[in-house]
Amino acid sequence: MSWLDDVKWDAQGLVPAIAQEVGSNDVLMLAFMNREALERTAASGEAVYYSRSRGRLWHKGEESGHIQKVHELRLDCDGDVVLLKVEQLGHTPGIACHTGRHACFFRRLDGEEWKTVEPALKDPARIYT
Amino acid sequence: MSWLDDVKWDAQGLVPAIAQEVGSNDVLMLAFMNREALERTAASGEAVYYSRSRGRLWHKGEESGHIQKVHELRLDCDGDVVLLKVEQLGHTPGIACHTGRHACFFRRLDGEEWKTVEPALKDPARIYT
Repeated sequence: MSWLDDVKWDAQGLVPAIAQEVGSNDVLMLAFMNREALERTAASGEAVYYSRSRGRLWHKGEESGHIQKVHELRLDCDGDVVLLKVEQLGHTPGIACHTGRHACFFRRLDGEEWKTVEPALKDPARIYT
Repeated sequence: MSWLDDVKWDAQGLVPAIAQEVGSNDVLMLAFMNREALERTAASGEAVYYSRSRGRLWHKGEESGHIQKVHELRLDCDGDVVLLKVEQLGHTPGIACHTGRHACFFRRLDGEEWKTVEPALKDPARIYT
């Protein structure tokens, strides 16, 4: 039995993985991992996800340079959600979102509308060159 | 168009919803919401999820009394993950997990093993009476 067998993978062989910033405790993003992604994350100390849109492993920061250094891996009570405590590298303050923002959760419900309430820290055109 | 149409529901009509504690910024849990759950959450100001195991709406705290008062609702860049900033009611400190712990992410990877690193704050037998 491996620690990877303690994870309850869904029908697609995936689990949601939440990246939370060490220090600020900000929730940066949520992506999915398959078994290989989680194994590589633990082995390398850098976040590796499974991109459902691209259908392949995705070493976070491979294009942007916005690598996530993993300080801790956690598993929830049901074994079907992973939490990563990460240091968001490549820019200060850290940029986890492909829109150039610190975190992906930059829209807040305001009445009947999602309003953007966080600024972009860098132009995405300059991130993905 | 409603703000609910901005959410990209998956093939089962669900989105993952992360509950984060206001103040501490602790990630308490992840559950799923369908359209009705999100609508009721926004309307009532208390977290309502969709329980996949029970196949019905689940007003968090309906049995345990551990209600989540919602301070903010956020949507991510892709529109397929919701973040709730909540106040965890019913016990001090807050108990979000059915095991009686503050949060569901109480197992930390230590070498090749998930180790429980957070204490139960209340016996589950006393929560669900």
